[in-house]
Amino acid sequence: MELLKQRIRRDGQVMAGNVLKVDSFLNHQMDIRLFGEIGKEFRRRFEGCGINKILTIEASGIGIACIAAQYFDDAPVVFAKKNPTKNIAGEVYTSKVESFTHGRVYNVIVSKRFLGPEDRVLIIDDFLANGCALMGLIDIVRASGAELAGAGIVIEKGFQEGGRIIRGMGVRLESLAIVESMSEEGGVVFRG
Amino acid sequence: MELLKQRIRRDGQVMAGNVLKVDSFLNHQMDIRLFGEIGKEFRRRFEGCGINKILTIEASGIGIACIAAQYFDDAPVVFAKKNPTKNIAGEVYTSKVESFTHGRVYNVIVSKRFLGPEDRVLIIDDFLANGCALMGLIDIVRASGAELAGAGIVIEKGFQEGGRIIRGMGVRLESLAIVESMSEEGGVVFRG
Repeated sequence: MELLKQRIRRDGQVMAGNVLKVDSFLNHQMDIRLFGEIGKEFRRRFEGCGINKILTIEASGIGIACIAAQYFDDAPVVFAKKNPTKNIAGEVYTSKVESFTHGRVYNVIVSKRFLGPEDRVLIIDDFLANGCALMGLIDIVRASGAELAGAGIVIEKGFQEGGRIIRGMGVRLESLAIVESMSEEGGVVFRG
Repeated sequence: MELLKQRIRRDGQVMAGNVLKVDSFLNHQMDIRLFGEIGKEFRRRFEGCGINKILTIEASGIGIACIAAQYFDDAPVVFAKKNPTKNIAGEVYTSKVESFTHGRVYNVIVSKRFLGPEDRVLIIDDFLANGCALMGLIDIVRASGAELAGAGIVIEKGFQEGGRIIRGMGVRLESLAIVESMSEEGGVVFRG
């Protein structure tokens, strides 16, 4: 998606430790107009897949998933929770996820009431790196008996293993920008 | 907002410990069509206020804020973070907040790059109860030198003190549904 790549080139910052900082438009301050274009692009790629539910994970996936849902007939969006709260009662699907950003392991939780065999699910998230969060969400979709239509990712770090593993599992994975390599001096190089 | 009150009456569950569970449409599964109506109602109430930035807090405020932003000329949405990560660099505004839901104290953080004197801010959140989260956000807006246009809340628990305190501070607070009282037997009674 050219508009997105231009934006990453212009406003993204490559930081030490393989961090691509895009917090001015994607995951701290959010550019709602860009999110609309991202939503349209996900629709273009997953049109006709019969998607009736969108699954994401807190926090930075939520805004993108909600705006994108408007291009899938206002499909309900479910966000997986990282911090179990006393507001989640009843039975839940859980999966363990290791966070690169936060440096810890946490449980990802979705209430069983909101995902089941009647659902055809598109997973949406902002980043794919080592794939742990996405694999946790895929686990949950499979446990629920729902059908997984695919996963839509805004930025994939193509030099980490997540994309290869997920595609190897036979999951349809659509990343709108794949970073082939990046460095503090040379900036970002995209695949393709 | 009548549509919202109907939905709370139909799908909300009053649980022990003053918990109003609305996770089927507001803060776990999200009804995007309802969020659109909520966004229009916020626009109606804050039209002409010159709002150019929306501030919310992770996680459940984000979806509502992003959809609502479309009714404020796609104003950028900034979400305050509860878990400082290594992806936030540079200077930040911080405020301490006590969470009723999670039973702990955490820091709320916003990068100084995304809030400043040029901003006219609408704060949006899903719930207002004791007002701690909202007061943390108001602190941050004031520290930034931005102008606070007001706060838009989806559900206010009118029997807790947050609304009274915030209004007493002179902040324009618009809650779309104010719960006057609730009980497991009697359900929800709205103010007005």
